[in-house]
Amino acid sequence: MLHAVIMAGGSGTRFWPLSRQALPKQFLRLTSERSLIQQAWDRVAAWIPPDRICVVAGNSHRPLLTEHLPDLRSDRVYLEPMGRNTAPAIGLAALKVLEHDPDAVMLVMPADHVIDPEEAFEQAVLQAAEIVQNDPRQLVLFGIRPHYAATGYGYIETGAPLTGISQARRVQAFREKPDKATAEQYLQQGNFLWNAGIFVWRADRILSALRERRPQLAASLAELPASSEAADFTSRWSQLESISIDYAVLEHDPQVCVIPATFEWDDVGSWESLARRLPADERGNVVIQGACSLVNTNSSIVLAGDGHVVVTSGLEDCIIIHTADATLVAKRGDAESLRKVIEQLKAEGFDGIL
Amino acid sequence: MLHAVIMAGGSGTRFWPLSRQALPKQFLRLTSERSLIQQAWDRVAAWIPPDRICVVAGNSHRPLLTEHLPDLRSDRVYLEPMGRNTAPAIGLAALKVLEHDPDAVMLVMPADHVIDPEEAFEQAVLQAAEIVQNDPRQLVLFGIRPHYAATGYGYIETGAPLTGISQARRVQAFREKPDKATAEQYLQQGNFLWNAGIFVWRADRILSALRERRPQLAASLAELPASSEAADFTSRWSQLESISIDYAVLEHDPQVCVIPATFEWDDVGSWESLARRLPADERGNVVIQGACSLVNTNSSIVLAGDGHVVVTSGLEDCIIIHTADATLVAKRGDAESLRKVIEQLKAEGFDGIL
Repeated sequence: MLHAVIMAGGSGTRFWPLSRQALPKQFLRLTSERSLIQQAWDRVAAWIPPDRICVVAGNSHRPLLTEHLPDLRSDRVYLEPMGRNTAPAIGLAALKVLEHDPDAVMLVMPADHVIDPEEAFEQAVLQAAEIVQNDPRQLVLFGIRPHYAATGYGYIETGAPLTGISQARRVQAFREKPDKATAEQYLQQGNFLWNAGIFVWRADRILSALRERRPQLAASLAELPASSEAADFTSRWSQLESISIDYAVLEHDPQVCVIPATFEWDDVGSWESLARRLPADERGNVVIQGACSLVNTNSSIVLAGDGHVVVTSGLEDCIIIHTADATLVAKRGDAESLRKVIEQLKAEGFDGIL
Repeated sequence: MLHAVIMAGGSGTRFWPLSRQALPKQFLRLTSERSLIQQAWDRVAAWIPPDRICVVAGNSHRPLLTEHLPDLRSDRVYLEPMGRNTAPAIGLAALKVLEHDPDAVMLVMPADHVIDPEEAFEQAVLQAAEIVQNDPRQLVLFGIRPHYAATGYGYIETGAPLTGISQARRVQAFREKPDKATAEQYLQQGNFLWNAGIFVWRADRILSALRERRPQLAASLAELPASSEAADFTSRWSQLESISIDYAVLEHDPQVCVIPATFEWDDVGSWESLARRLPADERGNVVIQGACSLVNTNSSIVLAGDGHVVVTSGLEDCIIIHTADATLVAKRGDAESLRKVIEQLKAEGFDGIL
């Protein structure tokens, strides 16, 4: 049976100051009235029953989960005391899913991406499930056809078609985030796809791969207490190797294939990428939300919190994000700048606004 | 006897969004724990008794006056229903002061300037009072020696020394705000002073000058009801000619002289000029107040309201002023930009934050 695992452990800071440690991106209503995690739920709940949808999330976000996903079963929430990247989270989910269903096929998908249309996504997942049914060894990925030379994504180099399934292809190699020239080359060659971090595989298959490639991690996961509320769960979890499923398994496994997506995909990874999804005025400004008055201002991104007015004058290429207790004013164009900002805020003791 | 008239009718928008229609600049604590109007009061209250200090202010600011100036006598507050520039305000004050003291000499001074040291100011005023005592016809101004080629002030061209008083000089001419080249020339010539808007004269003398130069205005002032709370005070006041005392009287009167100031003077006329009074960090940034974290930011001016953190990244030459309900983010260097901002906010119906 097909189970959905929504990966909601992200504590991303890329939408600071709107996102916080206590309110990560997946709980924000960035692109619709529904938060990103609600959109992820909707994406599968139409065709997978709630008792086969689980969520892996940070301990402290349980109340947010309850608020955002009222149909989520409380026994299908797997809590991480702290982030340990995707391999431990996926391993934990696989173990839990297997308890319910020894033949479980898992759809693993991030809680904070935008995918459209949902029907194309469903069809792609069903195709992947068919691949796994035909060949239980297959680890199936979804690849996104690059529409620009992105340097912020990992790439999948595709190889020969998978026998019998026209669109799926073997994965030739994984390529880490490239520099601009390499990304341009990938774009031209045409056989490179973005790795969307969406996977379909049998739960027992990914666990045996973990046992083979990361035996210590697999053993530690198997020995975890059943409940994350157990006394030593946190200390044991903290000792798990922090590693991505890509690096732990996928890059080494011979049975990895990829389906080129027929759906639109956006990881909405930054203020910049969010702004690209929204209408701009004739000067190229995007007001994400709130009351703003832009005077002689160009190519800027502005968000004003409730009951507040943001007023700009003479600006070019700026990002202004106002929230109740913190306001960010940044020059556009430096993708790393927000990371530096967060580091400096930590160093300066501004923990209350992180 | 010497009376002080503190001119507090300003409704300036130059410190928006910190200053508002309901909280003009003179009530802000921009340069010390004492608001500018409190500093104006302190400047004269050390040597002029409270019953000879009066304030001309906007109707709606009476509660602020009471809060800021607890020693101000309530019968020495003269309220304007709306601003009509300085000539009507000074004429009203002169009429009121004369009721108390037919021989009154008035020191007229704005409520929103910074002057230092106070002793030098007192000495200068006493010297001016002496001039008036020796020659009751004299209208005495204070002139500030320009220390740069300012284009934002009116200039006084000085003439021959006043007989018997070494520093005072006759006023040769008034020069409106000059262009940059003219301002440079004034600076080089050495006989030009900034007009600080501080005056000493007999109350009866300025009234007779008003009667001579602006008979309609003088007559209307004389016919005003005694109390600003009288039924028709507002409509009568609204019909007064809106004109400065400089333009109404001083530029035409043959008996105007100027004392070059021995005190430091600053009209603190903009965020820029306020920033010049405050320490800058090694990148030229000035944090006026509040919690700020400046990352890779240069030559910027930042103010954060209580309980809020303003965070900047990659900025150059910006002004960021955060208040509870409005935040301004502007590029430095365009002195007129704030005026345009206010106009646009009015046009867009943002009256609640003006």
